Amino acid sequence: MELNAEDEIILLLSCPDRPGLVSRITGFICDRGGNILNLNEHVDTGDKTFFIRIAWSIESSPLSLDELERAFMPLALELGAAWKIRESGKKTRMAIFVSKYDHCLQEILWRHSMGEFAIDIALIVSNHPDLKPLADHYGIDYHLFETDRKSKADVERDELALLEQYGIDTVVLARYMQILSPHFVERYPSRIINIHHSFLPAFVGGNPYRQAYERGVKIIGATSHYVTEDLDEGPIIEQDIIRITHKDRLADLIRKGRDLERMVLARAIRFHAEHRILVNGKKTVVFE
Amino acid sequence: MELNAEDEIILLLSCPDRPGLVSRITGFICDRGGNILNLNEHVDTGDKTFFIRIAWSIESSPLSLDELERAFMPLALELGAAWKIRESGKKTRMAIFVSKYDHCLQEILWRHSMGEFAIDIALIVSNHPDLKPLADHYGIDYHLFETDRKSKADVERDELALLEQYGIDTVVLARYMQILSPHFVERYPSRIINIHHSFLPAFVGGNPYRQAYERGVKIIGATSHYVTEDLDEGPIIEQDIIRITHKDRLADLIRKGRDLERMVLARAIRFHAEHRILVNGKKTVVFE
Amino acid sequence: MELNAEDEIILLLSCPDRPGLVSRITGFICDRGGNILNLNEHVDTGDKTFFIRIAWSIESSPLSLDELERAFMPLALELGAAWKIRESGKKTRMAIFVSKYDHCLQEILWRHSMGEFAIDIALIVSNHPDLKPLADHYGIDYHLFETDRKSKADVERDELALLEQYGIDTVVLARYMQILSPHFVERYPSRIINIHHSFLPAFVGGNPYRQAYERGVKIIGATSHYVTEDLDEGPIIEQDIIRITHKDRLADLIRKGRDLERMVLARAIRFHAEHRILVNGKKTVVFE
Amino acid sequence: MELNAEDEIILLLSCPDRPGLVSRITGFICDRGGNILNLNEHVDTGDKTFFIRIAWSIESSPLSLDELERAFMPLALELGAAWKIRESGKKTRMAIFVSKYDHCLQEILWRHSMGEFAIDIALIVSNHPDLKPLADHYGIDYHLFETDRKSKADVERDELALLEQYGIDTVVLARYMQILSPHFVERYPSRIINIHHSFLPAFVGGNPYRQAYERGVKIIGATSHYVTEDLDEGPIIEQDIIRITHKDRLADLIRKGRDLERMVLARAIRFHAEHRILVNGKKTVVFE
Repeated sequence: MELNAEDEIILLLSCPDRPGLVSRITGFICDRGGNILNLNEHVDTGDKTFFIRIAWSIESSPLSLDELERAFMPLALELGAAWKIRESGKKTRMAIFVSKYDHCLQEILWRHSMGEFAIDIALIVSNHPDLKPLADHYGIDYHLFETDRKSKADVERDELALLEQYGIDTVVLARYMQILSPHFVERYPSRIINIHHSFLPAFVGGNPYRQAYERGVKIIGATSHYVTEDLDEGPIIEQDIIRITHKDRLADLIRKGRDLERMVLARAIRFHAEHRILVNGKKTVVFE
Repeated sequence: MELNAEDEIILLLSCPDRPGLVSRITGFICDRGGNILNLNEHVDTGDKTFFIRIAWSIESSPLSLDELERAFMPLALELGAAWKIRESGKKTRMAIFVSKYDHCLQEILWRHSMGEFAIDIALIVSNHPDLKPLADHYGIDYHLFETDRKSKADVERDELALLEQYGIDTVVLARYMQILSPHFVERYPSRIINIHHSFLPAFVGGNPYRQAYERGVKIIGATSHYVTEDLDEGPIIEQDIIRITHKDRLADLIRKGRDLERMVLARAIRFHAEHRILVNGKKTVVFE
Repeated sequence: MELNAEDEIILLLSCPDRPGLVSRITGFICDRGGNILNLNEHVDTGDKTFFIRIAWSIESSPLSLDELERAFMPLALELGAAWKIRESGKKTRMAIFVSKYDHCLQEILWRHSMGEFAIDIALIVSNHPDLKPLADHYGIDYHLFETDRKSKADVERDELALLEQYGIDTVVLARYMQILSPHFVERYPSRIINIHHSFLPAFVGGNPYRQAYERGVKIIGATSHYVTEDLDEGPIIEQDIIRITHKDRLADLIRKGRDLERMVLARAIRFHAEHRILVNGKKTVVFE
Repeated sequence: MELNAEDEIILLLSCPDRPGLVSRITGFICDRGGNILNLNEHVDTGDKTFFIRIAWSIESSPLSLDELERAFMPLALELGAAWKIRESGKKTRMAIFVSKYDHCLQEILWRHSMGEFAIDIALIVSNHPDLKPLADHYGIDYHLFETDRKSKADVERDELALLEQYGIDTVVLARYMQILSPHFVERYPSRIINIHHSFLPAFVGGNPYRQAYERGVKIIGATSHYVTEDLDEGPIIEQDIIRITHKDRLADLIRKGRDLERMVLARAIRFHAEHRILVNGKKTVVFE
């Protein structure tokens, strides 16, 4: 399949730092008729790692994406790079996992309907039937896995099969109140996005708003991160905060926090969908 | 001593909640010729505690502050209240404890010179000689306690004697790199203000900027709190944050954090000096 | 009709400042068995005007709201006060005016469904049919006034009749792309809430995002205000901002601005619905 | 003079956009032994202009800065570029113009003493003697031009001569209460940095805090911009804001605004000193 002339091609790459990287990589693109629209790079001077994102357009390309990848392979090998090349026109297929809270799902579906996300929402998975009407309103498949009827391992096996069947690339946990097993998580490395309703690493675990209320903080936050085996420890993608005062009761924290959760998760999804995130150990490089 | 006609009188009070409190307290003030300029109240509905701050002016008062306090005593006893009455014209005497970093001290002294704080800075105490020139520039006594020459207990005993001698009401730890003993702390309950260079309760203890850098957070913060026996656990007065990105190295976090520390500590001092803070267990009520 | 024991009674009052106001007003409430839950007051020292909001509960009241108002009348007259007394249980009836943009309406209806607003959304009015499906989804009457078929004066006359018929107290302009006539505006003084998509007074009039883009500002804003005869000049209720950079194109400003508009309008509606706003000439006092 | 091996070389360039720009420019650097440390580029898709900032290190360079510039000239001519090459080790020489307010000067001098700015503060110019002690404290020349003794044209002629004599590259107006003539301004194009105490374009001209107070805004701001012939109309470098409420009197706006002014001006100076700003008509591209 040939590349669509209107699409952008996006390279995300990290490798050990050395002189001449930008020039060699941009030279590769230039030699194949690419017009660079956007270039971001970063060097982690601590462990001397190089990160780059380049977006380019191709007015007339004799190369398909496959051919482009094959052509880039020798350079990538030489650099010892972790990399991927994506077309902006080929949308990331996402599944949204939810429980009973609707605010994050509502926000994602509405933004998606506005064309804000370069994604296909192929599937909504839940352990509760509550949000099916919302899925129906937007015409998206809704699969209910009632977790009390089967073992957790069995449920996850069925979920993974379903994700496979739907060709899902990325899973979004939109206030999904279940903890995924390490087995599940390792199937989607840096491809499961969670929203935690606190300013991590403050208030890990359950009931963070109650913890915040009892500690008497003057600011609450929300954190979106990739899920790893260690709960609430994955690389942070985005955070935001809002002020509170002594006047705010627990219910007010929950209300104000809902707005944060929606906004922070939406930004994380957009960054991910536009291939703006590179993982750097426990951290992320986000090329906004 | 009679009250100065231009001053405000300020009542800070907390007691178990019950009907009619505002009316009775404001009635007391009204009956003594007070014109209420500002009233803030708050009820913690969880443990049913009532908090109030009232500022009033007195055009002609036959009462001294002592007489006013005596007159208020029966009502306070009946209500089971913790309370104090202050004159805005009588400035809080403060001592600033510093080590080597100058930014917080610089900020406090400059704001004080602008007339932003209703305080007297009577004394600067340090375990290093570095900031003496700054103290001299502003004409403030600087006492050096070299901590390696004496035991910590001896140093603190001398410091407490000095604070006594200077009539100090409140101690500000402006990036003071020593931990005060419980004995010292209990002498100034809710009257020692610290600035911690993280968004508490994230990153307690040492090197919070390094902790934040290594965790890969997208926002850093600073927290001003009253010092209690439990390190970094005292009631939070004020917090603020600033965004960081992957581009910010540890040195950038420290640089950006300095600005936060200055601003947050300055706000906490102002709230304290204007008698705007009531402690509510591990939390504060701040009537801004 | 007797007052519901679970409701709060709310007094909003402004009058020329003088000594003893708080005491007399709280005394009035106390004498009628009221337990004050929340009291905010403010004195504009420039023109010596006093503003107060008091919320109280009544465990057993022999008085109806009418009787309470009648009882308060002599004091209000003596003080030369503008005032109203409301029950929290009696929801403000609102009409939402929209054109084609759905984001503000979506946000209001969703928040309303979450129970965030103490309002009844009785009616949606539009000059376009586009948002009828959204109104239907939430089961709210949708009235279409096609402005090209009648004169503007005729349309407004019909709209006013409809508002009357529905018993509407407050009108919300949720990105309504029509300018209301002075005749319409004076029928709802301080009861028409607009959202303007700029940081007023910057970028009044049309296309504020384009104006902001062309001026090269680094921050964009949104402003919610009461509508007066002077376009974009009414008393400001709430504002907020978001950072932009040179990377943001006009479309990004519009996208980011949508989030601001939603949040700012929602906060303004909540303040209004909870009777937290007093108008002070061209300004507002908002007791958050 | 050979380049210092520890320095970074920085290229700032803008030109009409066309394919292959990044590759050709980075190739030029690479061919001369440069190791790119940081690259930022931006395309204004409206008028198809390309902007780039590249910072690189040179381990062993046979070229002086002059030779490097000469070598780059042919490419620059071909591209129709506006450009400059700078060494990070060669500090920008700045003059600070002040009147009576000390907060901005204080902030700049303190930050400079902390090593935050890659600048030499060679000179302070004022129309008042008030801030001479502060200049003395930091050991910086202070020149007083009393504007009532000579015509404005004469004063400016003397000031320009002084700037010439001190080898000044950039002028910072740190709350300087005089308006510079077009003649003066055109001598330092995009090299005069001003701080305006409002969120431009709101509240241009005099007394912006009073204007803001009277309009009843809920947020105030500060704006740093390059000075052009049109007052308050120059390209904006940086802005920031702070919330205010009805409780804030004019004096509070001034106090809160001081903090904004200091912070915003400091950021603008840092961006300028690190060669991070390109002017794009009435706008700026700031590569943070």
